[in-house]
Amino acid sequence: MDRIKLGLAGIGKIARDQHVPALAASDDFELVATASRHGRVEGVTGYVSIAEMIHACPQVEAVSLCTPPEGRFEQAMTAIRAGKHVMLEKPPAATVSEAEALAAAARASGVTLFATWHSREAAEVDAARTWLADRRIDAVRIRWMENIRQWHPGQDWILAAGGFGVFDPGINALSIATRILPQPLVVLHATMDVPANRACPLAAAITFRSGEAAVDACFDFLQTGGQTWDIEVDTDAGMLRLTHGGSRLELPGEPLVSGSNDEYPRLYRRFAELVRSGESDVDLRPIKLVADAFLVAERRVTEPFEF
Amino acid sequence: MDRIKLGLAGIGKIARDQHVPALAASDDFELVATASRHGRVEGVTGYVSIAEMIHACPQVEAVSLCTPPEGRFEQAMTAIRAGKHVMLEKPPAATVSEAEALAAAARASGVTLFATWHSREAAEVDAARTWLADRRIDAVRIRWMENIRQWHPGQDWILAAGGFGVFDPGINALSIATRILPQPLVVLHATMDVPANRACPLAAAITFRSGEAAVDACFDFLQTGGQTWDIEVDTDAGMLRLTHGGSRLELPGEPLVSGSNDEYPRLYRRFAELVRSGESDVDLRPIKLVADAFLVAERRVTEPFEF
Repeated sequence: MDRIKLGLAGIGKIARDQHVPALAASDDFELVATASRHGRVEGVTGYVSIAEMIHACPQVEAVSLCTPPEGRFEQAMTAIRAGKHVMLEKPPAATVSEAEALAAAARASGVTLFATWHSREAAEVDAARTWLADRRIDAVRIRWMENIRQWHPGQDWILAAGGFGVFDPGINALSIATRILPQPLVVLHATMDVPANRACPLAAAITFRSGEAAVDACFDFLQTGGQTWDIEVDTDAGMLRLTHGGSRLELPGEPLVSGSNDEYPRLYRRFAELVRSGESDVDLRPIKLVADAFLVAERRVTEPFEF
Repeated sequence: MDRIKLGLAGIGKIARDQHVPALAASDDFELVATASRHGRVEGVTGYVSIAEMIHACPQVEAVSLCTPPEGRFEQAMTAIRAGKHVMLEKPPAATVSEAEALAAAARASGVTLFATWHSREAAEVDAARTWLADRRIDAVRIRWMENIRQWHPGQDWILAAGGFGVFDPGINALSIATRILPQPLVVLHATMDVPANRACPLAAAITFRSGEAAVDACFDFLQTGGQTWDIEVDTDAGMLRLTHGGSRLELPGEPLVSGSNDEYPRLYRRFAELVRSGESDVDLRPIKLVADAFLVAERRVTEPFEF
């Protein structure tokens, strides 16, 4: 089968670390062009914008966007209106309404839109989902705690208005939780700690409900020492522990299992399937839960934060 | 045709002012019971909860909820799971995710769910929508400014976390805007003024986009003197002015038209149509835009507010 000609937009850290290697190993895609103000990929023709890339390379069939969420709406709309299939890094847009407008535009243009959630492709997420499907869920604990200075040094935009703050990583936890829990999540209460000199929270505690189960979630961007990306689920058959961002799974009475990271190759395989079957996959539950948390949150002003 | 037997939940000001008179004049509904912790309607059997009402009056076919948004999710879920059709006052729930979970539950139970937006039933909203349908929209100005002390005296919950603040009335403007503008609205920027002793904004400015048009919206809960609930739309055929909450319409070169208030009778006629045709009507765009605004907002702390 012919490989799908793809343009990659936004050549930054995530593109270099994940997208370019996944595409290099892909049987489904051929990376034919990039669009990025500053970044380039060796051996691939680079343009400064999606509009210019599409104009100069009409053979591009699909565009994968890993630019920051702010501004992605315009870029994705440009690609969709030009009849290109589009894959979006998480979060799919800066807001729920933007993401839904993109989905509507993709339907109108007859192209595939794939809103990716890479953490859902972590090695043990599917196994966790399968194990939980028939269980009674009694309680859920989410702990997503990492050091912003280690993972996002100097990235002021994450704490600016619209930057999601601690939900930039935290939305990964919600993408996993919405995938593995059998009942929909709704936000009951949220508390957010916002530094006096920033717009977005550095820490948050949210209480959700999923069916009859309480879901307690703790998000922290100032975690030093060991980093924590864990979800624990109490069930009628004992406790499930999905740790290390979804890559390790402990089930009652079974040995720990741990798979290797295949997140981005899996995302591109799925994108190819969607393109070939003419479908879209736009699950906006994680970003809706984040927006809901901002809507109902109690805010506490904390001391100013500098990187 | 037999009238649909209806239970009314939440007997407060909006129930007495609007729902009870609309039901008394309705050919479609018969008010057979109420559910309210404290309120009663003369001549109608009252219960203290929806669960009790449904248990004692199994003949109730439909439940109309005008309780405050917080807590409405549980109440609506109880009615839906009992196989009752449900009509919701605005906003339909405390969060987007709650509203979507209700819609999913209604589909699963095969009952009608109607998320009402009463301002959309204001006299001239349909005429505005029709006039704008084929116009090029150049700019939109929304001014929704009223006095919280006049309309919500002592209602602390409106400014508490989850109370929506100035978007309690402001969501009415967004329900009209999403109805009359041909292109979807997306939030670009938001600024919110939050009193130091409250969780929700008393004032907000939002910039939206609708297609190519900029939409500037100003929400204020401290408007003294004349109250303002106006939307102006600049088009290629001149300016449309929809004022007084949607009840007056000025079109270029035409005399002002002004209709009488028929909002709640129209809502109940529509609910009856939906029940009889087995359909639901759950348009969540207004609450999604409010959640998006909270998500991207710059917050300014203003002086403490007391009623």
